[in-house]
Amino acid sequence: MTRKAQREVSQSDDAGRRKNRRGRGSPQERAAARPAPPSFRGLRNPYRPVEVISTDQVEAIHHASLTVLKEIGINVLLPEARDILAKAGADVGDDTRVRFEPGLIESAIATAPRRITLHARNPACTSEIGGDRVTVATVGGPPNVSDLDRGRRSGSLDAFEDFMRLTQAFDVIHVIGMPVEPMDIPIPFRHLETTFAGLTLTEKAPFIYSRGVDALNDAIEMVRIANGVSRDEMDSKPHCYTVVNANSPLQLDRPMSEGIITMARRGQAMVLTPFTLAGAMAPITVAGALTQQNAEALAGIALSQLVRPGAPVIYGGFTSNVDMKTGAPAFGTPEYTQAAMASGQLARRYGLPFRSSNTTASNAPDAQAAYESEMSLWGALMGGCNLLLHGAGWLEGGLTASLEKFIIDVEMLQMMAAFFRPFPVDDASLALEAMREVGPGGHYFGAAHTLARYESAFYSPLLSDWRNFETWQDSGSVDATRRANAIWKSTLADSQTPPMDPAVREELEAFVARRKTEGGANID
Amino acid sequence: MTRKAQREVSQSDDAGRRKNRRGRGSPQERAAARPAPPSFRGLRNPYRPVEVISTDQVEAIHHASLTVLKEIGINVLLPEARDILAKAGADVGDDTRVRFEPGLIESAIATAPRRITLHARNPACTSEIGGDRVTVATVGGPPNVSDLDRGRRSGSLDAFEDFMRLTQAFDVIHVIGMPVEPMDIPIPFRHLETTFAGLTLTEKAPFIYSRGVDALNDAIEMVRIANGVSRDEMDSKPHCYTVVNANSPLQLDRPMSEGIITMARRGQAMVLTPFTLAGAMAPITVAGALTQQNAEALAGIALSQLVRPGAPVIYGGFTSNVDMKTGAPAFGTPEYTQAAMASGQLARRYGLPFRSSNTTASNAPDAQAAYESEMSLWGALMGGCNLLLHGAGWLEGGLTASLEKFIIDVEMLQMMAAFFRPFPVDDASLALEAMREVGPGGHYFGAAHTLARYESAFYSPLLSDWRNFETWQDSGSVDATRRANAIWKSTLADSQTPPMDPAVREELEAFVARRKTEGGANID
Repeated sequence: MTRKAQREVSQSDDAGRRKNRRGRGSPQERAAARPAPPSFRGLRNPYRPVEVISTDQVEAIHHASLTVLKEIGINVLLPEARDILAKAGADVGDDTRVRFEPGLIESAIATAPRRITLHARNPACTSEIGGDRVTVATVGGPPNVSDLDRGRRSGSLDAFEDFMRLTQAFDVIHVIGMPVEPMDIPIPFRHLETTFAGLTLTEKAPFIYSRGVDALNDAIEMVRIANGVSRDEMDSKPHCYTVVNANSPLQLDRPMSEGIITMARRGQAMVLTPFTLAGAMAPITVAGALTQQNAEALAGIALSQLVRPGAPVIYGGFTSNVDMKTGAPAFGTPEYTQAAMASGQLARRYGLPFRSSNTTASNAPDAQAAYESEMSLWGALMGGCNLLLHGAGWLEGGLTASLEKFIIDVEMLQMMAAFFRPFPVDDASLALEAMREVGPGGHYFGAAHTLARYESAFYSPLLSDWRNFETWQDSGSVDATRRANAIWKSTLADSQTPPMDPAVREELEAFVARRKTEGGANID
Repeated sequence: MTRKAQREVSQSDDAGRRKNRRGRGSPQERAAARPAPPSFRGLRNPYRPVEVISTDQVEAIHHASLTVLKEIGINVLLPEARDILAKAGADVGDDTRVRFEPGLIESAIATAPRRITLHARNPACTSEIGGDRVTVATVGGPPNVSDLDRGRRSGSLDAFEDFMRLTQAFDVIHVIGMPVEPMDIPIPFRHLETTFAGLTLTEKAPFIYSRGVDALNDAIEMVRIANGVSRDEMDSKPHCYTVVNANSPLQLDRPMSEGIITMARRGQAMVLTPFTLAGAMAPITVAGALTQQNAEALAGIALSQLVRPGAPVIYGGFTSNVDMKTGAPAFGTPEYTQAAMASGQLARRYGLPFRSSNTTASNAPDAQAAYESEMSLWGALMGGCNLLLHGAGWLEGGLTASLEKFIIDVEMLQMMAAFFRPFPVDDASLALEAMREVGPGGHYFGAAHTLARYESAFYSPLLSDWRNFETWQDSGSVDATRRANAIWKSTLADSQTPPMDPAVREELEAFVARRKTEGGANID
């Protein structure tokens, strides 16, 4: 549901919010008093995850990955990280290779929390990550942006801001991704501009890029300001998250190690996701790619816990495969779906929240994009995913953020959200009285049972067109992708900047200005 | 995989088949000696079905539907059917209403088989229906056909024949549907022409329409001739199937009752499928629509078993919902997905094979068609579906058979078939040796483990384009729907008529000619 639709049913809430903005008290008090915003709907998956491998097979992958970490080890490029690991008992030689005894890995990961509360500057947008909860982020990382009108082009801050407005508008998007790289902003300033845009254009918890200690601390400080919390409170509760990808195979580079260490020290959430493309950076078998994924994830998770036991960390699975004819990465493949579900089984074996993704290799927001994304979504969500990254907007293997695909994805996510609402089975819903009233050969349009429920009985689509063929044809035979184009435009046109205390906004602006004067962050 | 691709790897099989065609012996002996055709791949679903309701809720729907049958009853319009039911102990009054004691329903359905072997004229195309097996049919019933070149038009025998060629070509399609109505053939002759086309252009088991006793017996006789079996053997083994839809709510009309009785007497397979659109022909609640579906299905199944205990019958679920704003039927909705999975739970409660469908309300073979079909497919297949009707080609709520949608569906089905192949987890696939060989920071393209497996490691798509954006753009930025257009054309161009004994073909032709001379079938 968009913000506009919900505005119409919550005028009094809006009035309350406006009044609160003029009120007194600390930003925290004002935030706490603010009514729930309309554009956030927490999701729970009530169904038992699909298990594609047996418990014995989960154990076989677990033990194989411990063997990898013991016998092959991983390269850790940051000396500080090697020191932490050596101190904990890992086998660190003269080079960058680090090997782990199984007991060290198992005791280290045991301190990771089962569930993470990711606080947003509006408490109503705070997400729980773990258990049966499902938190959804936008696409993250594409250098390009595309839409039907302007085609594919380099990412920009303008485009980034549009994705922030869409993020704020749809209630099935819970946290910010890094939807597109603003290539028009110099790298040392980029984290300042994107964090500012995310914090001011949405009320949802932000993603921050792991590009070195400076940039992380800048972003964390901005999130602290926006949330109106003390440094101590910030460092004890996750208010933002990052993703740390191993350089598969079996390598953790400097910025990624810095990301783990900094986020752990600052108490912020991190997703440890090896990027294991079977046949390229990982073995060509799904079991082998999962073994490598698991080894890399466990090593990173262990590092986070050795820095700070209890650091909020999420097990990331991103095993897919390449097209062996061309080497091109493929996404939303049957192997991807299986790997996502098996990754969920592995994460649950360790009691860790599980991250997966909504992906496609399609170059256009077309039928292929839809069916590959559905294969990803079902793999992720019925695999027990707790944090769905790239939830909306991913196209072209992650190289492009598509505005039309964003809308198609929101529709698919809304449908999954409705699927996650179990239907009631009780005397009223079993409808014996209605069947008695209507009888054989009748119809239910006018039945009392129908009239009492018809307004909210079924999922109401954002994008799907259910009109008959003639009506659809008379109105121009507009297909789903072209309808999505109209929907993102109207959503942007109707978008509202969420309230923020002017003093907080000024403090953020001053921080950005100061850091720019200082030359921004030192990026590797 | 298409026939062409597989022809290239099975030249010797083809040579064997040609030789057999020139051999001696009865048609049966020759059929049995023929090698497996390339275009049939049996599917098993190795995963535990998703359960969207509890066992107690399944029982609540079961008991509510028995209450419906006892207290409200159903209208049975065919006197012969009422006589059969009355003789078995049902409460049949002066009108058409029939009421059933729960014990009568439960004892009658207890004789239905758990599993059905549906024999095809080529034994290699024989399907098992039940257990973990998944049998897929094309779309059935649309009065219209469409493709990108010619647009939407009335169905014709030419179009029907093209769909038969596509049915034969793709190995994930196991049985014939009635893909499009040949509106250019007079109704009394239509079953003769479609059955002839199906039997001669494919080797797969045919669907026959339930349009009265005459037409059913004509079609069954043609299937008997094509299979080269005696009347006794025909009547003891299913060689074709039909679908009997209740006239929801709670009504079984004459042709449908005749269908149940005739198919049971002739030992042929039937699918009992109420068409329960929640809010229109069924209560607006999913639980209520399922209760009505279950009551209607159980009544029809009971009739089949009272005619002939052990008659091959399949539990059909087709509960969806209407758009309450317009009354338009919707398909592939979240409610549809839930209802499909719950229907599977009901079918398994009775130990019956379960039929579901691949549906969409979209008017174009676009992204909406893809994601609604995926929601249907996942609901059906993870709901434990044994017979997937409308598997390929359904568009526009079933009013149009689309050639492009057929190809999109085949791709989605092939992906599900690959998802259904569990990946091995053993020493070789865990790939420790490969990881030792490649080591941290390397890549797997040239590894021995990769080279030994790269040709068949992953699903190879029919329709998906995984090339990078620049290559895709340079070759015309062709989207999935337009690629599907090229694929159905090349598949038709490459299609081969499967072998048939000339004497059998002559016998079929003579039968059709005679029945036409006699005026065809007496259709109500």
